[in-house]
Amino acid sequence: MTDGPILLTPGPLTTAIETRRAMLRDWGSRDPAFIALTAELRDRLLRVAKGEGTHAAVPLQGSGTFIVEAAIATLVAPGDKLLVLVNGAYGERMVTIARRLGRAVEALRWAEDRSVEPARVAAALRADPAITHVALVHCETTTGILNPLEAVAAAVAEAGRALLLDAMSSFGALPLDLSATPVTAVLASSNKCLEGVPGLGFALVEPAALERARGASPSLSLDLHAQWRGFEADGQWRFTPPVQVVAALVEALRLLEAEGGPEARHARYRDNFDTLLAGMQRLGFALFLDERVQAPIIATFHLPPARGLAFRALYDALAARGFLIYPGKLTQAETFRIGCIGALDRRDFARLLEAVEGSLRVLEAA
Amino acid sequence: MTDGPILLTPGPLTTAIETRRAMLRDWGSRDPAFIALTAELRDRLLRVAKGEGTHAAVPLQGSGTFIVEAAIATLVAPGDKLLVLVNGAYGERMVTIARRLGRAVEALRWAEDRSVEPARVAAALRADPAITHVALVHCETTTGILNPLEAVAAAVAEAGRALLLDAMSSFGALPLDLSATPVTAVLASSNKCLEGVPGLGFALVEPAALERARGASPSLSLDLHAQWRGFEADGQWRFTPPVQVVAALVEALRLLEAEGGPEARHARYRDNFDTLLAGMQRLGFALFLDERVQAPIIATFHLPPARGLAFRALYDALAARGFLIYPGKLTQAETFRIGCIGALDRRDFARLLEAVEGSLRVLEAA
Ligand SMILES: Cc1ncc(COP(=O)(O)O)c(C=O)c1O
Ligand SMILES: Cc1ncc(COP(=O)(O)O)c(C=O)c1O
Repeated sequence: MTDGPILLTPGPLTTAIETRRAMLRDWGSRDPAFIALTAELRDRLLRVAKGEGTHAAVPLQGSGTFIVEAAIATLVAPGDKLLVLVNGAYGERMVTIARRLGRAVEALRWAEDRSVEPARVAAALRADPAITHVALVHCETTTGILNPLEAVAAAVAEAGRALLLDAMSSFGALPLDLSATPVTAVLASSNKCLEGVPGLGFALVEPAALERARGASPSLSLDLHAQWRGFEADGQWRFTPPVQVVAALVEALRLLEAEGGPEARHARYRDNFDTLLAGMQRLGFALFLDERVQAPIIATFHLPPARGLAFRALYDALAARGFLIYPGKLTQAETFRIGCIGALDRRDFARLLEAVEGSLRVLEAA
Repeated sequence: MTDGPILLTPGPLTTAIETRRAMLRDWGSRDPAFIALTAELRDRLLRVAKGEGTHAAVPLQGSGTFIVEAAIATLVAPGDKLLVLVNGAYGERMVTIARRLGRAVEALRWAEDRSVEPARVAAALRADPAITHVALVHCETTTGILNPLEAVAAAVAEAGRALLLDAMSSFGALPLDLSATPVTAVLASSNKCLEGVPGLGFALVEPAALERARGASPSLSLDLHAQWRGFEADGQWRFTPPVQVVAALVEALRLLEAEGGPEARHARYRDNFDTLLAGMQRLGFALFLDERVQAPIIATFHLPPARGLAFRALYDALAARGFLIYPGKLTQAETFRIGCIGALDRRDFARLLEAVEGSLRVLEAA
């Protein structure tokens, strides 16, 4: 039961056995030991992004979408206006969330294979003084594209607006320095580059933005201000926390530190990606993105119809060999995705490539 | 690391080691194996309450409050009106949730030591034809009081209104038969009488009520209709599921079946409660509630000021002996609570009572 498949997915992903073992214990959610664990969690999350001096960590129960929605509901007040920079499905989702909440929202869109352009963002902010907040997806998991965080953050700060950053699939690996880059709120979750198990999102938010947001959320559950006040008041969660998921994430954060922090993790993922790309190209698969805009998080490959390979058949053949890959999320091209994140290194990718080769041999002979 | 304290709390609570071990594996959230696990989860949840023929199971990421809010946001449409029957903090919370969502809501209140009275409910429904939904807390964990589900459900059905039942601290133990009792939606979570780990709520809802609710929730995350459509479409979760929490809950549901189902669990909890009550009375502690309205889920005891015992001191003394008790949640009386639920039996309570006796000996000598 303890050995599952190797997950080459954008999360839930392959975690370290130490991380999973941290879930073998029961915790009283109001006990001092768990209050201390929560404090360690909040401290470590801030440290990953150098936000100790400027931000407050607010973990929230639920998946990544829940923390994104909580941030929009809490920080974009009625009367504010949000500009979402969209080049994939997670940007689109932020537009949907804001619309359903009845918040004023507009989208600036790029094709899925194009990075967000800071100059267009600056122009849009000059053109519409009503915009108060800008939302950016750091790494769009839809394709794996990297958006230029520093330049966008500078343009937004220059224009005096607040930046909300969906760092779901980058936090803990791609560079993020809150002491140098102006970001009002960073949103991420337990189960991607931090290599924890799913069940928890978190926001790193400037306290002034939280202060201003009291009562703004129409939701009791998805209220970052109230959640933050709860932690500040007595170190406890307002509502029952997923104690084992918290314990796993704290263990995963300790492992991140032991590995050498986000830089070392970034280097490992880069090595995974490079190994994967070289091998897949050798097997005849082309990367969907231009390499210059590709983050080493998740790779999208074409599935050329001419090759007669169905995703399902490839998936099943690899699953039978112990590897789970991920479907594409694009509408205009037949693709599939392979995650480079998780407790994996280049040797796992070498084994994956052997499995791909073996699968192709069987599938293309058929 | 695998052995924590014994939790005498209303959840997170003491779970079986098999349940925790089910978390040692990684799962791909879109893999057929996890889709099958999700289907087993949804089937088993319905079977616990005999809802297979009449209801659909809709699990949702987050704590119990999240599923309560999702149900109110989705099922009580703008233009509808909710009547909440309140005799404790969880009833009050439903009023707060509905208000923040901007839904029309009214409360009918009882003292915290009084059960909800069906006749008053029937009268309130006759008096206000605008009320479309009634919300009841089955067991109010604030005190441990049992509310008369069958009689309230009959009164609500008789008046042609819909009943939302917060069965958070009763589901899996107290009798609930959806084939006989008219309830539109039952709301509960993974980490109470089902003895799973926290991180997941679920609703058992009549499909007709879900059909009607398309687009009603202002929240993308807390939208039971969309969550349900997602499961029905391809068996997958809309957003990343807490895969280990799901695996633990499925294991816990298998253990519930092996134990003999909710009736056997109810009998064990009753035995726990009886053992606890007899022992605590022998040690001079009085139950807060009249025994006739007490559910065998959680017991509230007076902490008489005359005795000079502070909750903190008692808590710490018991914690040092490996037992975690729970603070009271009442404003009018000094109390503390002891949960009778979790993977515990009368022998654990006998040991607890020895620990209480030992603690008192030290504390009262001081
Ligand atoms: C960039 C990004 N944003 C948001 C999400 C949503 O997270 P979740 O699936 O946990 O709700 C994801 C998940 O893959 C993501 O990659
Ligand atoms: C009756 C009842 N309703 C709702 C809740 C809220 O659940 P959670 O703390 O998981 O948000 C609880 C939790 O104890 C409860 O006992």
